[in-house]
Parts: sequence; structure tokens; C-alpha cells
Amino acid sequence: MLSLSAKNHFTVSNSITHVIKSYHIRTLTSSAEKMPHITTPFSTSASSTKLKAFRKVRPVLQRHSSSWIVAQNHRRSLSGQSSLNDLRHLNRFPHHTLKTSNNEFYPAEQLTLEDVNENVLKAKYAVRGAIPMRAEELKAQLEKDPQSLPFDRIINANIGNPQQLQQKPLTYYRQVLSLLQYPELLNQNEQQLVDSKLFKLDAIKRAKSLMEDIGGSVGAYSSSQGVEGIRKSVAEFITKRDEGEISYPEDIFLTAGASAAVNYLLSIFCRGPETGVLIPIPQYPLYTATLALNNSQALPYYLDENSGWSTNPEEIETVVKEAIQNEIKPTVLVVINPGNPTGAVLSPESIAQIFEVAAKYGTVVIADEVYQENIFPGTKFHSMKKILRHLQREHPGKFDNVQLASLHSTSKGVSGECGQRGGYMELTGFSHEMRQVILKLASISLCPVVTGQALVDLMVRPPVEGEESFESDQAERNSIHEKLITRAMTLYETFNSLEGIECQKPQGAMYLFPKIDLPFKAVQEARHLELTPDEFYCKKLLESTGICTVPGSGFGQEPGTYHLRTTFLAPGLEWIKKWESFHKEFFDQYRD
Amino acid sequence: MLSLSAKNHFTVSNSITHVIKSYHIRTLTSSAEKMPHITTPFSTSASSTKLKAFRKVRPVLQRHSSSWIVAQNHRRSLSGQSSLNDLRHLNRFPHHTLKTSNNEFYPAEQLTLEDVNENVLKAKYAVRGAIPMRAEELKAQLEKDPQSLPFDRIINANIGNPQQLQQKPLTYYRQVLSLLQYPELLNQNEQQLVDSKLFKLDAIKRAKSLMEDIGGSVGAYSSSQGVEGIRKSVAEFITKRDEGEISYPEDIFLTAGASAAVNYLLSIFCRGPETGVLIPIPQYPLYTATLALNNSQALPYYLDENSGWSTNPEEIETVVKEAIQNEIKPTVLVVINPGNPTGAVLSPESIAQIFEVAAKYGTVVIADEVYQENIFPGTKFHSMKKILRHLQREHPGKFDNVQLASLHSTSKGVSGECGQRGGYMELTGFSHEMRQVILKLASISLCPVVTGQALVDLMVRPPVEGEESFESDQAERNSIHEKLITRAMTLYETFNSLEGIECQKPQGAMYLFPKIDLPFKAVQEARHLELTPDEFYCKKLLESTGICTVPGSGFGQEPGTYHLRTTFLAPGLEWIKKWESFHKEFFDQYRD
Repeated sequence: MLSLSAKNHFTVSNSITHVIKSYHIRTLTSSAEKMPHITTPFSTSASSTKLKAFRKVRPVLQRHSSSWIVAQNHRRSLSGQSSLNDLRHLNRFPHHTLKTSNNEFYPAEQLTLEDVNENVLKAKYAVRGAIPMRAEELKAQLEKDPQSLPFDRIINANIGNPQQLQQKPLTYYRQVLSLLQYPELLNQNEQQLVDSKLFKLDAIKRAKSLMEDIGGSVGAYSSSQGVEGIRKSVAEFITKRDEGEISYPEDIFLTAGASAAVNYLLSIFCRGPETGVLIPIPQYPLYTATLALNNSQALPYYLDENSGWSTNPEEIETVVKEAIQNEIKPTVLVVINPGNPTGAVLSPESIAQIFEVAAKYGTVVIADEVYQENIFPGTKFHSMKKILRHLQREHPGKFDNVQLASLHSTSKGVSGECGQRGGYMELTGFSHEMRQVILKLASISLCPVVTGQALVDLMVRPPVEGEESFESDQAERNSIHEKLITRAMTLYETFNSLEGIECQKPQGAMYLFPKIDLPFKAVQEARHLELTPDEFYCKKLLESTGICTVPGSGFGQEPGTYHLRTTFLAPGLEWIKKWESFHKEFFDQYRD
Repeated sequence: MLSLSAKNHFTVSNSITHVIKSYHIRTLTSSAEKMPHITTPFSTSASSTKLKAFRKVRPVLQRHSSSWIVAQNHRRSLSGQSSLNDLRHLNRFPHHTLKTSNNEFYPAEQLTLEDVNENVLKAKYAVRGAIPMRAEELKAQLEKDPQSLPFDRIINANIGNPQQLQQKPLTYYRQVLSLLQYPELLNQNEQQLVDSKLFKLDAIKRAKSLMEDIGGSVGAYSSSQGVEGIRKSVAEFITKRDEGEISYPEDIFLTAGASAAVNYLLSIFCRGPETGVLIPIPQYPLYTATLALNNSQALPYYLDENSGWSTNPEEIETVVKEAIQNEIKPTVLVVINPGNPTGAVLSPESIAQIFEVAAKYGTVVIADEVYQENIFPGTKFHSMKKILRHLQREHPGKFDNVQLASLHSTSKGVSGECGQRGGYMELTGFSHEMRQVILKLASISLCPVVTGQALVDLMVRPPVEGEESFESDQAERNSIHEKLITRAMTLYETFNSLEGIECQKPQGAMYLFPKIDLPFKAVQEARHLELTPDEFYCKKLLESTGICTVPGSGFGQEPGTYHLRTTFLAPGLEWIKKWESFHKEFFDQYRD
């Protein structure tokens, strides 16, 4: 027990060799709101020349709190006062009473990583992990000294961020959004706007009708579920896409990108370590990160690389059964289709098999379908909702209880509007009660950004034939699509032509996930540098060519195999040639 | 134990009176991707006329999953098959093995509210609660039949959503955002754009410079911490606002509104029931909702109504000590200044006293300062950051460890851009390590909406004297400000002139939180209707006048007292007169 009163001296432990000088205390008196001489419960006794000099230095030290404290301690020892560090812990959450008088106190310690929610510490998100962070450092270095590296720019192939790589936004979208932001333009004479050649008539009309749906301003909160008129557009889009299988606006939630939808769904179903969520390996690490935050279990099911990263339903069922045996409830099953990072697109049969397992075990399915507009020739996308409805028709009673949440986003496709945060989820088989719970969660974040909601409307209702923007819009889409295909195929063929790297043929999405078969010497050097072999390859690739990718470990892979994920969004084919040269040199250097 | 094989019949319990007919199973074979005749592991045996007729009815029933199942069961009993309901639970998480052959299975039950994360079920957010939901119903009713109610429109005084109530956005902001959305406009000849009288020159220039900061497109993901150039603007704004106390861009995080910042901060520090977060009562219910989601404890500290809802530091310290005694760690202290719902603005002394407690106990302070631009004449806003720096200067060593997160938003002030989701937090006293943890959390959501980030830049760097938009921008701001003041004062004076309702004088924010002293008869009727008295008053108010408010219980209040929160955003003064009439009639009806 310690007691302190004004002017007492005491020794707490041997490590404190200085005597603590007490502070004079003045009671707080009310005062005018004049700054900066406020009276507070205490004042310092020191006003030495050293302190005055020190105060000038302080702003620089304030940058890092720990430096600041070190500097303060230094100052205190300069002035003969003892370090308070050793005492601080006493005041933190004292189990004993520090009897204070006149409001003197010892400042408690800061909160540190030790105080942070462990779930947050555990969560990892590699897409913006170590290699991309290194790329940022190199980018900054190039800005200072453009000649200092063997390349002149960083190519961010680590993230599906098309417009960062000079992909142009679709003109129609941006005309509409521009008009929504500045409705004064809509008060102008339509013909004058059209004659200015800045806005097309159909864009003007769409902006006006959207403005009505929205209620008059993109600056007002909308309903938390999203603007009703836009949800109707989404439902119509889904119905048409799914060959007439009806979708209802009540089942649609507009969200700030698909990531927000994942967040809601996992918040709702994750109850802690006894909850299991099946995720494909390799996966998009949003899922494992969110599971870590929710302190729930990831149940990985491996995709089969050799058959184009296909999904194996027996694998899924095995994982489910094992979870049950381990008393973990396999509550949710995540399917990413088209796959990220794999680029695989599921056949109707695969989807049906997945639903069998879901129906049998009562597992909610999350269908992450954000890449459904990124499909390569020769492949057809079938939505999981459509297949579910077919199964329900064909096999009455078997699939009626299946609960499915299907996600889409304006970040991908050919629009690539990642920074606008538009998306939606469609809930199938969720009761009104369950939807109300999700609505409540959504209401705590108030509403998704309204311009993002508008963008969803544009995505699901693009210009149609006969409308003024149709032809140019089609031309823009085709151009982007063709370039993506060309780059994807070039990269794919390049990988397969080189030794030590092979790749499954992409069917969709924006990524390749090649397997790297590193020579033993390279693996040794990686270990020496305390990197995994895939990190090592990615690091070398970055430092030689400026191409930033993400090691396969960020997505999960069969133990003993090494991959990396790259996008094929960067314009041109030059960077692919650079990669090819680098790879050959790398293997020349490390070949056994 | 049950075993099933093809064509077996069995009875499970007395309640199953029908015999289960087995299904023929066909092994899945690969097939062309032709729809809809996919082969699946099993097929139904039924294809009766009744079923075909039923299928036409099905789309309507699909709307509600439970109706769908009922319909299916009905169909099955029509065709002589027994209900599968009673068997479903067996397959859910079977502890025994259901030996199946040929992939037949019984569908498991759906997940229901019983399976939902309890924390989500517990969370409440009253701002969009029962009374506002009733208002939405009445709104829909008015759309169908405008004469059916004693009022012609709903006035949403329940939410701080200015642009929903015809407050116009600031022209300068919207010109810049419009240009950012459609950069083609920036490629035009500047003079021509100006001559069109649609865009002012300073808006064009700002859009160009922001576009450079952003990196070329609002459609690309930005860095997760937010565009660097915009963070610099924020740091400069804070430094200037705080009389030269330096703010650093590294300490700034741009966020999707202040709500996202609260979400990050509480995720990081909430570790479960042993974590306590002090919140003011009354509070903005985002805090209690988020605490419920994080399964941590709210530690309420009561604001003092009779002294204008001031903060009592002794009350705060008492709450802290009690928490410690109950083995709850008082980790975070939330201060809402200006207050929501109270409208109170803290004096420098009050702030200093709050920091004393924080410094003494090592509690992180969240300063929710989103209403700092909504200050009434005669009141001055002092940021908590500024006061902290003063305390650190005046009392070296005492306050060095204090950790503070200060929040701001583009949703309030005179811009009222709620739907655009712009905001920031400034971290003071957080080490680099701690900032990295927050950065990681932010990266899981990728980035805040980029146009919202741009709006933050506009908020902290409005047009200045000499620039083309300055005068009109000032005029717009003053006009909005004056109208807000007029309505606030009118409402305040009206409340205080009536019996049974009294109100503290607002110093800032967008709300009044009057206390209602209901007559006993009214309290009785409320209880009869199973409503709290404040809900009852709000419901009556809504149904008589269309004015939608939020009962005080949504924000917290001293037990035995009743309040409601209303905004003063609705245009004009007519609705205030309506309220006055309603209140007099209400008291005439219920007076003892």
C-alpha cells in the first residue's frame, strides 16, 4: 500500500534512486475561456532555462510518442527529478488505493499492442502486405531519384485495381455520376448540354430518373438497405441474367463494395471458435482476415490445381465432417466464382454438388461472384442462384432450405470502379426476420455511399441499343475486354513456355496464379533470408523489374507448393517481356 | 441410429404417419453446359399434373422462404409423400452417422435467429428504430392516399440528414466533385467552361490539383490510410484551427464517415466483457451498438441536464473506479463534443478535467467532434487535441501518455453531405506500431470511398477570399447557418413556453433533447400500450403531425426522466407551430 500526501518522499524500489519531488497543487477554478493560461488541478514547479530550450525541440519529438517520453524522462533527470516510469504501472489499474490529495496523480502508461484485441493482431491481409509495402518504398525512392533502380516505375500487379493502371472509366457512367454530383447541370436546357458535346442525352435522362429514385440528393443518407429504385433495377437484372428466375428487391441489399457484405454476413453467423467457415484454398484473404476478427475458424477446402483449380465436393464434405467431429459447426461455405486468385469458373454440375453438401448440412453459402463480368471466351458463367432455383424445381424438397448470399460489385468487370465502393448482395432463403437483423447491422453504418449505389444501377442497366451512348459504350467495353484477354493469354502462354513456372488456363477474373518450381539453391537462399520461397521470388521480381505481385502464401496453397498472384491489368505487353527476362536470369542464377 | 438404403421404408416416430418413399438416385455424370436439364445425384419421381400446376404458383410463394416450405409440404402431402420436417434435424449436425447410399440425403434445417451471433441480436440502433420505421409506413400510406392522414407529409426530424430536408449542398463542393467524376470536363478549355457559367475557375483548378493528389481517377482504390495530399490538407487545417499546435499527416486516417473510425477504434480496444468503454448518457447510439457487437461493456457517465448537459469529471472518475472494482478495465472514454443529442459544447476546463482522468487511468479518449462546425453564437469550440497540447506544455510529464483519437466528418456542418461518407480521424499519442494495426484494419476494407476523401479536402480547405467562388460560397454558408440558428432558437423557445416540456439551450450540433414531463394519465396509457412514455409521446406526435423524432430511451437518460431527440433541420417554421398545437391538445387530453 502506498500513500502520498503533499510533499512526502518515499522509495518504491531499489531501481528508483532519485527522490520524487512532490508537486504543488492548485484547485481548479473556473476561468474565462482565455487561452493558453488555463488553471488546472496542478502546476509544474519547473521553468528552468533548460526546459525553455527543450520546448523548442519538442515538436519534432512529438512525432513519435515513445521518443517524446524518452525526451521527457531525459529532461526530468536533467532537472533532478526521478523517472516516473517505474511508478506508472502502479496507477494503471490499481488494486490497492493510491490515496491522493489535491488531485495529484501519476500518469498511467499508454495502451500498447499488449492491450489490443488479439483478434485484430491475428488478422492478416496480404494484398497490401510486405511485398506491396516494399513496392511503396521503392516508388518513393524513384520519385526522389528516378535513376536509382533498374526500372523506371512500379507496376502494381498485386491488386485488382484497373484504373490505377490507366484503364479508363466508362464514359457513360462518369457522365451520369457527374450530373448526379452537380444537379445544377440537370437544370440546364437538355439540348444545350447535348450540343456542348459533353453529355449525351441518355446520360442526362438517366441522371434525372436516378435523382428521382434517390430522393433529390446524393448528399443525403439513403435508407440503410439502399435506394429502392436501384434495388428494383438489380432485381430485374438478376431475373434476366438467370433466365427468368425471379429476384425480389426485398432480398437485395446495396453495400459499400462486396467487402461490406462479407463483413455483415460473417458478423452475423460467426459466434466464436465453435463456428467454422469453409473457404477455398487458395482464397481471397478478406475471408481469413474477417474470420480472425470474428474469432471464428477457417475450414479450408483445397481446390484442385491440376484440373484448372476445380472444386471437389467430396473434399468439401470431408472438411464438413471433420469439423463436426471436432465440434466445430460448419456454418458458412464460401465459394468464389469466378475464382480469386485462381480464375476458375464453376460448371453447373460443380455448383449443384456444392449445394448438395450445403443442403445436407444446413450450411449457408456465400457466393462471391464479383468477377462475373470477367469471363473469357469459351467459358460461360452460371450464377449460383440460378442453379439453386433449378435444383429446387428439379428436386422439390431437397434444396428448399438452402440459404444463399450472392455478392456483386462495381469494382471489377470492365468498369473497374474500385474507389467508388459500389456493390450488392442478394439473399435467397433468408426469412424476413433474418433480413431484419442484417438491416439492423447495415443501419449502424447508416447507409452505403449513395454515388456507389447509383453506380450499381448503371452497372446492371447499361446503355441499350438505340440509346445515344450505346455504340461508344460498347466500343469502350469491347476494347477493354479485348486488351484484358490479350494480356491474360500472353502472360499465361509466357509462363507455360518458361522452365520452373506453370499456370492453369484462366477462365475468368483478373488474375493468374502460376506455380513456381524453385530450384534448391533459390529455396536455400530464401531460407537464409528468412523468407518463404514464393516471397523470395516476388521480392526478386519486384527489385529487378518493378513488378509488384503477391506471394501465394497470402492466399493459401498446398503445403510444399509455391505460387504467386499477378493481375494482367497493366497496359501493354512490355512488362510481360521484362518478367520473362527476369525469370530466365533468375533461373540461370539459381539453377542446380 | 438410422440407416437408409434404396427403397427402404421406416418409421421414425409416431408423428410421422406417412411412409417415406425412397428416391431413385442417379450418379452424377458430366454433361454439357446445357440448361435446364442438368443431371444431379438424384431425381424426383413425381411429375404429376398437380405439380405442374403448382409450379406456376411457386414464384409468388418464393418470396417468403417459410411460405415456400409450407407450400412444398402441402404439395408433398397431396402426392402422398410424408413431411420431411421432422427428419431434418437429424441431418443437421449428426452425432450419429446417417449411412447413406447413392447420395440420398435429408435436407438440414435452415439457420435461424437462434444461430445468429448473439452480439448482433443484442445491438440496438434507435435512430432508425421503431418510430422511424412507423414513419416509413405512414410515408408509403401517404403515397397511396395523400388524404388519409391528418398531415400531408412526414417530416424526418429523427436523423441529422440535412439534404433530405431540402438543405442545398454547397455549390463549390459539387462543382469540384462533378469535375472529378468526369475528368473529360477538365480536358476542356478552362475559359470555355467558365464562360458556360456552369463551373467557376477555382473549382476547375481545385479539381485538377485534387486529381493529381488522387493519382488520376476516383475509380481506383487509394491507399488504405487515404490519399496523402488530402491528409496533408487535413493536418494543415488542424494546425491552423488549433492555434499552431502541429498536426502530422501520418497521424491522419481518412475514413468512410466518422462511423467507420469508431468501428476501427472499438474493434482494436474491445477485448470482450472485461473491456469497459465510458460513454456519455445521453449518447449517440452508434457507441452502444458497436460495443454490443464487440461484446464489451458500456460504462455510462451521466451528463448533468440542469447545467446545460455539462460533463462532471467526478462522475467520470467514479465510474472508472467502480469499473476497476468490478474487474472491468476502463479502456476507452468517449466524449461527444459538441454533444449529440444534447447540443452542449465543452469548456476548456471541462476538457482539461476529462484529460486528468484519462491521464490518471490510462484511458484512451475518443473525441467525437463531428459537429464542430455547428456552433451557435456566443459559444466557442475548443478541440480536445488543442487542450491536450496545452496541458502537455503547461504540465510536462503529466499528460504525455494520453492517447486521443479525434473524429470529424463531412456529414454535418453546413455541408451536410451525409450520403457521401467522408471523414477522418487524427491519432495523438499513438505509436507507429499502433498506427500500423489500425492501417491493417483499414486495409481489410481496402479504402474509404475516394470522392468522400476529396470532400474532406474541400471541407478543410474551402474557398478563400480572392477566389472566384468565395463570395457565393460564404453567402450559401451564412444562409444555411442563419436558418439553422433561427429554427433552433424558435424550437427551443417554443418548448420552454409550453407546459410539460423544457429544454436546455443548445450551444451546437443539430439537435434538441427536451425533457417531457408527462401527466399521469398519459403515462398510464403508455403502459397500457406497452410503450415507454417517451415512445408514446413520439408516436402520438408522429401520427398527429407527421413529425418523426426519436424517444430519449434510444440515447439514454436518467431513469424516471423522459426525453426525445429532434433535429431542427426541416425548413420553415410551420412544423414548429404544428408541434405546438399538437402538444397543447395532447396536454388538454391527458392533463390530470
